Amino acid sequence: MSSKEYILVTGGAGYIGSHTVIELINNGYDVIIVDNLCNSNYDSVARVEYIVKKPVKFYDVDLRDTAKLSEVFSTHKIKGVIHFAALKAVGESTKIPLEYYDNNVNGTISLLTVMKNHGVKTIVFSSSATVYGDATRFENMIPIPEHCPNDPTNPYGKTKYMIENIIKDIHGSDNSWKAAILRYFNPIGAHPSGLIGEDPLGIPNNLLPFLAQVAIGKREKLFVFGNDYNSHDGTPIRDYIHVVDLAKGHIAALNYLRNLNERDGLYREWNLGTGKGSTVFDVYNAFCKAVGEKLPFEVVGRRDGDVLDLTANPTRANSELNWKAELSIDEACRDLWKWTTENPSGFRIENYQWKLFNDSKRVDYDSRLHTVRVKDLEVSFANYGALIQCIKYKNKALINCFCGIEKYKSPSNPLFGSTVGRYANRISNGEISLGGQIFKLDKNENNRNTLHGGANGFHRQTFLGPVVKGHDSCITVEFTLLDKDGNGRFPADLVTTVKYSVRSNSIDVEYESSIDEGSRAEETAVNLTNHTYWNLGEEKTIDGTYLKTASNEYLEVDSASLLPTGSFAEYPKDLTKGVTLTNDIKLDNCFVVSKSIQSIDTRQETLKQVAELSNSTTGIHLKVRTTEPSFQIYTSDQTNISPFGSRSGISFEPCRFIDAINSKEFANQVTLKKGKVYGSKTSFEIS
Amino acid sequence: MSSKEYILVTGGAGYIGSHTVIELINNGYDVIIVDNLCNSNYDSVARVEYIVKKPVKFYDVDLRDTAKLSEVFSTHKIKGVIHFAALKAVGESTKIPLEYYDNNVNGTISLLTVMKNHGVKTIVFSSSATVYGDATRFENMIPIPEHCPNDPTNPYGKTKYMIENIIKDIHGSDNSWKAAILRYFNPIGAHPSGLIGEDPLGIPNNLLPFLAQVAIGKREKLFVFGNDYNSHDGTPIRDYIHVVDLAKGHIAALNYLRNLNERDGLYREWNLGTGKGSTVFDVYNAFCKAVGEKLPFEVVGRRDGDVLDLTANPTRANSELNWKAELSIDEACRDLWKWTTENPSGFRIENYQWKLFNDSKRVDYDSRLHTVRVKDLEVSFANYGALIQCIKYKNKALINCFCGIEKYKSPSNPLFGSTVGRYANRISNGEISLGGQIFKLDKNENNRNTLHGGANGFHRQTFLGPVVKGHDSCITVEFTLLDKDGNGRFPADLVTTVKYSVRSNSIDVEYESSIDEGSRAEETAVNLTNHTYWNLGEEKTIDGTYLKTASNEYLEVDSASLLPTGSFAEYPKDLTKGVTLTNDIKLDNCFVVSKSIQSIDTRQETLKQVAELSNSTTGIHLKVRTTEPSFQIYTSDQTNISPFGSRSGISFEPCRFIDAINSKEFANQVTLKKGKVYGSKTSFEIS
Repeated sequence: MSSKEYILVTGGAGYIGSHTVIELINNGYDVIIVDNLCNSNYDSVARVEYIVKKPVKFYDVDLRDTAKLSEVFSTHKIKGVIHFAALKAVGESTKIPLEYYDNNVNGTISLLTVMKNHGVKTIVFSSSATVYGDATRFENMIPIPEHCPNDPTNPYGKTKYMIENIIKDIHGSDNSWKAAILRYFNPIGAHPSGLIGEDPLGIPNNLLPFLAQVAIGKREKLFVFGNDYNSHDGTPIRDYIHVVDLAKGHIAALNYLRNLNERDGLYREWNLGTGKGSTVFDVYNAFCKAVGEKLPFEVVGRRDGDVLDLTANPTRANSELNWKAELSIDEACRDLWKWTTENPSGFRIENYQWKLFNDSKRVDYDSRLHTVRVKDLEVSFANYGALIQCIKYKNKALINCFCGIEKYKSPSNPLFGSTVGRYANRISNGEISLGGQIFKLDKNENNRNTLHGGANGFHRQTFLGPVVKGHDSCITVEFTLLDKDGNGRFPADLVTTVKYSVRSNSIDVEYESSIDEGSRAEETAVNLTNHTYWNLGEEKTIDGTYLKTASNEYLEVDSASLLPTGSFAEYPKDLTKGVTLTNDIKLDNCFVVSKSIQSIDTRQETLKQVAELSNSTTGIHLKVRTTEPSFQIYTSDQTNISPFGSRSGISFEPCRFIDAINSKEFANQVTLKKGKVYGSKTSFEIS
Repeated sequence: MSSKEYILVTGGAGYIGSHTVIELINNGYDVIIVDNLCNSNYDSVARVEYIVKKPVKFYDVDLRDTAKLSEVFSTHKIKGVIHFAALKAVGESTKIPLEYYDNNVNGTISLLTVMKNHGVKTIVFSSSATVYGDATRFENMIPIPEHCPNDPTNPYGKTKYMIENIIKDIHGSDNSWKAAILRYFNPIGAHPSGLIGEDPLGIPNNLLPFLAQVAIGKREKLFVFGNDYNSHDGTPIRDYIHVVDLAKGHIAALNYLRNLNERDGLYREWNLGTGKGSTVFDVYNAFCKAVGEKLPFEVVGRRDGDVLDLTANPTRANSELNWKAELSIDEACRDLWKWTTENPSGFRIENYQWKLFNDSKRVDYDSRLHTVRVKDLEVSFANYGALIQCIKYKNKALINCFCGIEKYKSPSNPLFGSTVGRYANRISNGEISLGGQIFKLDKNENNRNTLHGGANGFHRQTFLGPVVKGHDSCITVEFTLLDKDGNGRFPADLVTTVKYSVRSNSIDVEYESSIDEGSRAEETAVNLTNHTYWNLGEEKTIDGTYLKTASNEYLEVDSASLLPTGSFAEYPKDLTKGVTLTNDIKLDNCFVVSKSIQSIDTRQETLKQVAELSNSTTGIHLKVRTTEPSFQIYTSDQTNISPFGSRSGISFEPCRFIDAINSKEFANQVTLKKGKVYGSKTSFEIS
């Protein structure tokens, strides 16, 4: 067991759970998520990792599986638990109460038993204001204080009430337990990044998710249940709290518990609400403002059990936890709208699937294989090296690939499909000079040069994410990587995103890198490309395939060092006129598109076609366009990894000039300063 | 699956459960008991069977083992469930609440899930008045009506409260469920038979069990918690209900549910109480009266949470269920005292153990092997044939036996250790005449005579029980059997008990038979004995063992039919002088003790020594005493069942004269009339 101490978050893949995990990590906690995904999606975890730029341990475990859960506690040092996992739909709970009691109550008893057995006695429990029931049944209980008697009116609320009591009694039996009961009011909004938010299945029964679906045309109109209440506009008053504020409340509670003396236990309830009530119409108006249009609604009769006002009294949390809701309904609506428009169908993207992509012995969610399909084009991507594992056009594979991850990790893998970075191609003598400082990099090419970013280059790292988004005709898949200062002895923490856009007949690859704000170093060298090997034909080799390039001029290299001599040369056979590849055309050259670039972010340039490839047998045609000043072509004459041999594929690697960093003339292509953005774009068009 | 419909009783081995099972069976229900025995004892089930003279299906299943429980529901047709299974000690529940929630709440959720999956929607739930908490917190809530708001004050009470709510919500989600919630007040007393009752582990925290332990000297004195309450004697008032009344309440509720229309579901609570409050001193005095002496007590301070009066308002149950508590506190005390004195250590008898005695493939609790030990004497008994399986004196086996039950069931088993009945030995031509009526019995001896009660004689039947009781120097083991009218074509339902009394140097065998009240036939023939084969030596045969009898006169039999000729004969070698057994002394003779008996219940006679046996090698000496008029001696010359051969043992079978039923002179020995009792006693003394 590693000495690392974790906070275990049950239901961490859910709406509030995922937002809380982000706050935990932002506050320096290490997190383990346990979720049975029965009502959530692993993609929210992947997106959390994308946001925090860190992997997060995940276990697909049902809390009721006491044995499996116990294993997690035995494998890791857990110092506390935040317990979200629960079914949470009030309406549904009245239809299938047994499932609610089983999932919520049994699940918790199992969790508490495992915690007890492992001596973990710190818990923050996700409770709900529903435990109060109708607080208006009393005099002066609005805004609702924690001492308001409990009387939940539906099975969902009862499960929360029961669990509170179970935890209370455990503390009663052993007062060294530290338990924070957080009673939520109405969580709304989403993460400002627009990457995670509430993803309700079926018809949402909360105001804002419903309204959001009206806004994107999924629902015809909003139903307002009664406008004859005694409020300023006649609609009932609730306490809406931004989910990010709510998430922060958990950190406040957890810190509060951890600051108690080791021996002092505690059982205490805290309301998490704003203390400010808003009517249905207040919220409606705020959301319409965010959307920029008046959304249709209809006032219908009151709903059973609805009452005028259920606003929280949050003063206990304000004073004791030193926590306060800070975000407004307007901000919540803005964030919800961003989440909704950028993810109209939540985490469920049509024509996107993923599976684990690692040796079956161990389950590692960080290493997955993602497959998207747009009409005839199917493309698979792996987190490992953010690589393109497979491209199928009309079910014909167009690139060299392996089925298992092991071969991708093998030293003799010629970077099939991989992202290449932080510095593609060679750096002479493994030395760069930045801001007058010399950096001696790892020399991973026969102790002479630094090749492809060194031994632990991008192609050897597992990227986070992806964030997958789908529009009718295009699916985008975005990976990210935080490459730490010192990796390969490169300076600066470098954040890179690789964005693939798949359309029915093309795959665009877009790179974006910048130095992390937190980075000490202010400058680094970047040169990114992709190393896919194409074979459009039916044969084992590319010979017989037709190749045409936009340029016949390439960077002359020293045959020994393979480094540029500084001068340019013309390729003997004029490739611009087109050639049919044969065994004597051995290419491993960097062809020139343009000798100068406007900016280190070439995405401002127009895409230029630099090469085309076609095969008469299959009739498949590939066009390569890029914003880059040069492109390496390699006919894989050295490839030797079964079943692939010499000349089994041809790769086009749009990039910056080889060793540009060491050339006064071209260094600007690859020198990235803090605050600036490195970028490039390449498009592979298939027909 | 058989078409038989069962009521499944969870926790049926417990205090209230076992009493309810008896009432169910008395009301014609077939019962399956499910119990994990975590806080109860299978012996209570055995005693229930003993009382009702019927086997009761039993499954040792923990309700939380959903798979195993589901199997029970798949194997049998269940028409309803009475749910007792729960941990129930208030004090303990505050110390180990998690175990209480797990056992009680999880267990119930699992049960309800299995019921739902099998379409079983009728449940009677064992709840408690503890759900009301302190009802005195309201005006006019004493006596407590069902509408009194719930507020349990301890984990135990909360589990009951939660379960009520879970069942209520299931009914809410599917109102075809039929649920009766029975809220008990203070169950007291025991079954009038004195065979079952409350068997608390550790220090009882209820008034009467504690008082009972004071009465038998296990506790020094009763503590009365406060005598300054506003009651007639200053002690608090509770509603004490006889457990038999309580049990009957369950039948009333079950019948009520079953009388609803198929489609009409119901969820309803009923108090089960007397409506009459009694003070601590009222109960104390009643119990002292039952015991016949003033028991020591001490008044101490009030107990936290105690209140003046918690009396039930049972009018709803009285009117709707047409049920009323009928037994008084005096009767409860009388029954409790009988139970306590006859079972001072409850079901847990020192030096008594049992194990299953059937082929390992199937678990059958009806067939068990019971071993008791008093000093140097260890004796094992099986339910099958109520047989003596083994007798060990100073760890030396004295009788022929088999380890597994299979051989006992084999046709060539010469009735090792077995009880023989309903009619031991031969009945000539399988015919008897009773009250002028001729009965043609099964002829199971070469189609000529009826031998040992026929093919399905007692030695082929599984007896119920045993009831095991222990006093310092003596442990008694009682089996019972209801032999149905028509078995072997004998007339009349015959109830027989076989009582073994084991002391340090003797085993007494006592038989008692009478015709069941419900029997149509009024007369039958009975002749009972035991068929143990002794071998006091170390050898494979009895030869060399010394034998001496009290009589040398035996009933002469026809060598062909083996039936008495009517005259008596003297055995050639005078056994009264004693002989050393040799191969030429082949005995299979019925020796005469006396030619007339006072009564068919010979237990009124004094025990006469009829035979003694001793072995010089082992120095072990056996004396046979009996109240019977004759005794068969058999030297097992025909025995042939490996590892036992000819002359492997010698049996002494005190009994009535062979074929007495067909002899004018001796018929009175064996003719049993309704209302009369057949009895006999034999003692085997070992030294």
